[in-house]
Amino acid sequence: MDEFASIHHWTGARQSAEWQQRRGVVLGIGDDTAIVDGELAEDGVAAPKQMLLAVDTMVETVHFNVVTMREEDIGYKALAANVSDIAAMGGVPLHALVSVSVPRTWGPERMRRLYDGLYACAERYGVALIGGDTTSAPAHMVISVTVTGTVEASLALRRSGAKPGDAVFVTGAVGMSAAGLHALLAQSEDGAAEAAHPAIVQAHRRPTPSVRAGRLLAAHGSCHALNDVSDGLASEAWEIAEASGVRIVLRETELPRSGSMAAYASEAGIDPLDWMLYGGEDYVLLGTIDQTSVKATQDSFRHEGIPFFIIGEVEAGDAKVDLMRAAGSGHSNMQEKRVALAKRGYNHFER
Amino acid sequence: MDEFASIHHWTGARQSAEWQQRRGVVLGIGDDTAIVDGELAEDGVAAPKQMLLAVDTMVETVHFNVVTMREEDIGYKALAANVSDIAAMGGVPLHALVSVSVPRTWGPERMRRLYDGLYACAERYGVALIGGDTTSAPAHMVISVTVTGTVEASLALRRSGAKPGDAVFVTGAVGMSAAGLHALLAQSEDGAAEAAHPAIVQAHRRPTPSVRAGRLLAAHGSCHALNDVSDGLASEAWEIAEASGVRIVLRETELPRSGSMAAYASEAGIDPLDWMLYGGEDYVLLGTIDQTSVKATQDSFRHEGIPFFIIGEVEAGDAKVDLMRAAGSGHSNMQEKRVALAKRGYNHFER
Repeated sequence: MDEFASIHHWTGARQSAEWQQRRGVVLGIGDDTAIVDGELAEDGVAAPKQMLLAVDTMVETVHFNVVTMREEDIGYKALAANVSDIAAMGGVPLHALVSVSVPRTWGPERMRRLYDGLYACAERYGVALIGGDTTSAPAHMVISVTVTGTVEASLALRRSGAKPGDAVFVTGAVGMSAAGLHALLAQSEDGAAEAAHPAIVQAHRRPTPSVRAGRLLAAHGSCHALNDVSDGLASEAWEIAEASGVRIVLRETELPRSGSMAAYASEAGIDPLDWMLYGGEDYVLLGTIDQTSVKATQDSFRHEGIPFFIIGEVEAGDAKVDLMRAAGSGHSNMQEKRVALAKRGYNHFER
Repeated sequence: MDEFASIHHWTGARQSAEWQQRRGVVLGIGDDTAIVDGELAEDGVAAPKQMLLAVDTMVETVHFNVVTMREEDIGYKALAANVSDIAAMGGVPLHALVSVSVPRTWGPERMRRLYDGLYACAERYGVALIGGDTTSAPAHMVISVTVTGTVEASLALRRSGAKPGDAVFVTGAVGMSAAGLHALLAQSEDGAAEAAHPAIVQAHRRPTPSVRAGRLLAAHGSCHALNDVSDGLASEAWEIAEASGVRIVLRETELPRSGSMAAYASEAGIDPLDWMLYGGEDYVLLGTIDQTSVKATQDSFRHEGIPFFIIGEVEAGDAKVDLMRAAGSGHSNMQEKRVALAKRGYNHFER
C-alpha cells in the first residue's frame, strides 16, 4: 500500500467535514499543509489571515545516514522540508516545534550540531523555535518538525485548482538532490563527492525552500494549483492531477536541468531523467497557471531573480501524467513520443 | 545529561526573546506548551485568545511494547498525552497533526487500529485531525503528535508562578499508570493483568487528560502554577520549584492513592510510594494555589465531580522538593521525617 492509500485507509471518513468546520478547519488532511481559521501575528501578511500547519519527519537509515548527511545538514533539512510545505501554500513560515528520538550513539555534541543546522535554517527563514519533545530511542534517530505559517485568507494555494488549458511551471532545476545523493553513495572516500561536485551535494544536504516564489504566486492570483517537489516531479504532478481531476503533460525538453547535475550524470554514465522525474527533495515549486498570466508572472519572477520555467500544460481527461519525450531520446524516429509517467515517488535508498 | 540539560545545551540562547516576540511568541521552550499570539476559532474561549502548541512522541520499546499496549491504546495515549499538555495550560485542545514512522512489521491493519484509538481520543476531546506525515522506519515504530489549543489571553497557567505560602494540589490519584505497567510486565500470560487489575491497566493504557480541571483552574484565577503529571509527581514538582524559584513540600499522608493501586501493591508485596512519586503518565494536574482560595476551588471541583487534593505547601528557599514522610513509615520514631526528593523522572523500562 502506498503512502496515500495507507493514509486514506487510516483516516478516511473518520471526522465529518461539518464537525471539522466547527473546530475551525478550513482544509484538513491531503495538501502540503492544513489550513485553520486563525490569525497569527505577522505584519507581512494582510488580514484576514489563515493559519497553516504541517509536519515532516526524517528517519535515520531511511532519509539519511552518516555518509549522506552531516548532523548540521539533518537539522537544516528537517526544518527546510517543513518551510517548503508552507511555501507551497503561498504562506510565510513562523514557528517550529522539534521532536527528536535519540539513540545512545547520538551523544550531546552530535545533537548540538543537529540543532546548529536547525537554527541556521530558522534564522534564514525567520522561524521561531518554540517547543518540542525529546525521547530516547533504541536504535536509529528520528526527527519530526512541525511548523506554523500564515497566509492571507483565501489566497492559500492548494493542489486542487488546476484547469484544462493551464500552463505547468516549475521554479527551479529538478534532479539535483538525487544526483547529489547518488554522488555521495558512490564516492570512494568521505568528502570526495563534496570536493568534486559541491553544487549537487549542497542541493541534497541544504535544500532551499521557495518561500519568496510562493509569496509571489499567492500575490499574483493567477496560480491555480501548487505543490513543492519533495517526492519527485512525477509524483507531485500526479497529486495535482488527481486533486484537480485533470491530465498533466510535461515536456522533457523543457525540464530545467542544471549544468552541475548534467556534468555529474555524464561522468557517471547515467541518464539523469530518472533523477529529474523521480528524485525528489528539490523543494522547488510545481504549479499550474492561467495561460494569459504566463508573461506577467515570468516578468515578476525575472524582476526578483527567481527562475520560472514553463514545462508543460494541463489537459482535460482522467487524472494522469504524461511526458513528451524529446525527439531521438530512447526511440528511433525523430518525432516526440508521449509516455505515461508512473505515480511512484521517492525511495531514498531503494533506487 | 538529563532531558532538560540536553534541551538547554541544544537550544539555550539561540534566538533572542526580542526576536521571538517579533514572531508572535509569548512563551517559548520550557512549559507544557508554547504560547503564540493567535486567535483560533473556538466559541468556548473568550477573546482575546492566545494559541497553544505542543508535541509529544512515543517510541516502540521505550514507551510501549506488544505486552504493555495494544495498537488502539498507543494511538489513544499518543493524542491524550498532548491533550494533557493543553489542559496543563488551562486551554481547550483543537487540532492535531500525526506523524508516524512505520516498520514493515506494522502492517496496514495494525496501523488502522492505532488510528482507531487516535480517533476515539480525538472524538472524546473534540480534536480535529488535520494532517501529518507517514514515513517508513527500519525497526521500531515512532508516533509523534502535535496539538494546537486555545486559551483566553493572559489566563494561560504556566509553571513559573508558584508563591511561598501557596497550597499544593493534585487533581487525581497518582501512581496508577506505573502500577498498571508493573502488572502488565509481571503477568504470566497475555490478558492476565487486565482481567485481575482492570483499573490500573486502563490507567496505563487509556489515560484521562484533565481538560475540564484545567479550564476550572484558569477561570478561577487563583492558580499560580500548573503542570500535568506526565513524568512523575516529584519531577513535575521540581519543574514548578525551579521555574518559580521556590521550595515545594509534599506530605506522604495526603497523596491520593487509589484502592486498586493499593490492592495490587499489597498483592505484589511492593511499597507503591515509588510509583506515586516517580511513576508518571497519570496526566492529573499538579499545581499551586493561593491558600485563601482553597475552599472556593474545592467547592467548584466538588460541584463538577472532579477530585481535588491538597498535598503540600510552597515555602521560600532554594528550588527543591521535600517529602514529609508519614510517622512510622520507614523510620523508627513516631514523628514526621522530612526527606529530599530526587529530580529524576520516569524511565519506562529502566525501573
